[in-house]
Amino acid sequence: MCLQSKIKACADEICEKLGLEPDQFQVKQGDLSIPDPVTSELVAKMIDHTLLKATATSEEVEALCAEAKEHGFASVCVNPVYVRLAARLLKGSAVKVCTVIGFPLGANTSTIKAAEAKEAVENGATEVDMVINIGALKAGDYQGVYQDILQVVEAVHGSAKVKVIIETCYLTDEEKIKACLLAKKAGADFVKTSTGFGSGGAVPEDISLMRQVVGPELGVKASGGIRNFASAAQMIKSGANRLGASAGRKIVQGE
Amino acid sequence: MCLQSKIKACADEICEKLGLEPDQFQVKQGDLSIPDPVTSELVAKMIDHTLLKATATSEEVEALCAEAKEHGFASVCVNPVYVRLAARLLKGSAVKVCTVIGFPLGANTSTIKAAEAKEAVENGATEVDMVINIGALKAGDYQGVYQDILQVVEAVHGSAKVKVIIETCYLTDEEKIKACLLAKKAGADFVKTSTGFGSGGAVPEDISLMRQVVGPELGVKASGGIRNFASAAQMIKSGANRLGASAGRKIVQGE
Repeated sequence: MCLQSKIKACADEICEKLGLEPDQFQVKQGDLSIPDPVTSELVAKMIDHTLLKATATSEEVEALCAEAKEHGFASVCVNPVYVRLAARLLKGSAVKVCTVIGFPLGANTSTIKAAEAKEAVENGATEVDMVINIGALKAGDYQGVYQDILQVVEAVHGSAKVKVIIETCYLTDEEKIKACLLAKKAGADFVKTSTGFGSGGAVPEDISLMRQVVGPELGVKASGGIRNFASAAQMIKSGANRLGASAGRKIVQGE
Repeated sequence: MCLQSKIKACADEICEKLGLEPDQFQVKQGDLSIPDPVTSELVAKMIDHTLLKATATSEEVEALCAEAKEHGFASVCVNPVYVRLAARLLKGSAVKVCTVIGFPLGANTSTIKAAEAKEAVENGATEVDMVINIGALKAGDYQGVYQDILQVVEAVHGSAKVKVIIETCYLTDEEKIKACLLAKKAGADFVKTSTGFGSGGAVPEDISLMRQVVGPELGVKASGGIRNFASAAQMIKSGANRLGASAGRKIVQGE
């Protein structure tokens, strides 16, 4: 089966399970312009400079914020406990504060994910990367996956971009497609490959797949295992327009 | 320096930093009776039968609960999204429902940890295993670590036992001692070694250390990497009175 037919079949199944009219998932084709050449200036603007280690200290977050300003990264991505600090340090700069919700297992209740996202926005985050309920997706509970994303989208109420981490390493292609469709339907701004804490990270094939599912209207964030310029460029050429990486400095210096 | 002097020095430092009167951490000695011999019946009663994988489905949680009842395990330990299901399935049995809070990174805000714990209790959990703010501990912010634990303890309001995961794999011995003292002071019921998602799990040396710090009044839970009866027995002989394991069935069948 060709990819377009696969996506159509997944979309039909989801429409049925969610009780939606069919053809909810028309994708506008051909609007995505992939930059060529990929320069380090361009890559820098796409990087979410990321520090999500359990052991991260406020001192390390301070260094992260300074580096993000220096290199003109898109954002810093820190754990919820550091959102307030990062927002204070980045005030007046173009660097955004991104945090993670229900991270990295995605197995928190929707109520808590929504509350965590709401609090993060109050503390100064303007981007929140949430992990889907992977077990619900695996069990075919698409309504559950959808409602979970929707509650986070509604909690931030347009005050923050919502990126939906589907954790590709654990999913079949069909599950990846369905997760992207559900994220799009729920009003997310981005789909994102990985937490960096699973069994694998971003691969170009998944970026390409996810881009074809969501079309040009949503962002696609590649994350997990992007450690140098070549890998970053490959993700962008495959359709990513945001990159999550802890090696941002090395990436932009290694063109 | 002998261990007792080390513990005393850590206790003094914490009392000073928290503005407490000195000698808050007197440990009653000699009350802990370590079972001998360690039988599989005894081990079974100490096992938190654990399934915390990101991909866990409701079907797998159902199997987990059935196994816990069959073998007479202490509890099932599941992610927050499955607390309600486990509570329904285990109603009327002696098996408790345990869940995890701020898991596995511990870098969620105290507000969200407390809310997650409160909701878990409302959903039927009677044991909550919370992860400390590891970064705060690393940075010497003992007040922050203490308040974080305290908020969870207060949120469950005596309706659930609170186990405090210190994530030993990332800590120096001094940090392990301090984390245990802070957990004890905050009114926790157990200290616990590991999330199982860090770089290492329980080792007998840490169990012994933690037991000497908290004394007989608190529980000590060994978790992470306990895969057979010999390893379980070794933890118990070192001072553990609860075991977190996904291999519970294999452990009790392998005496």
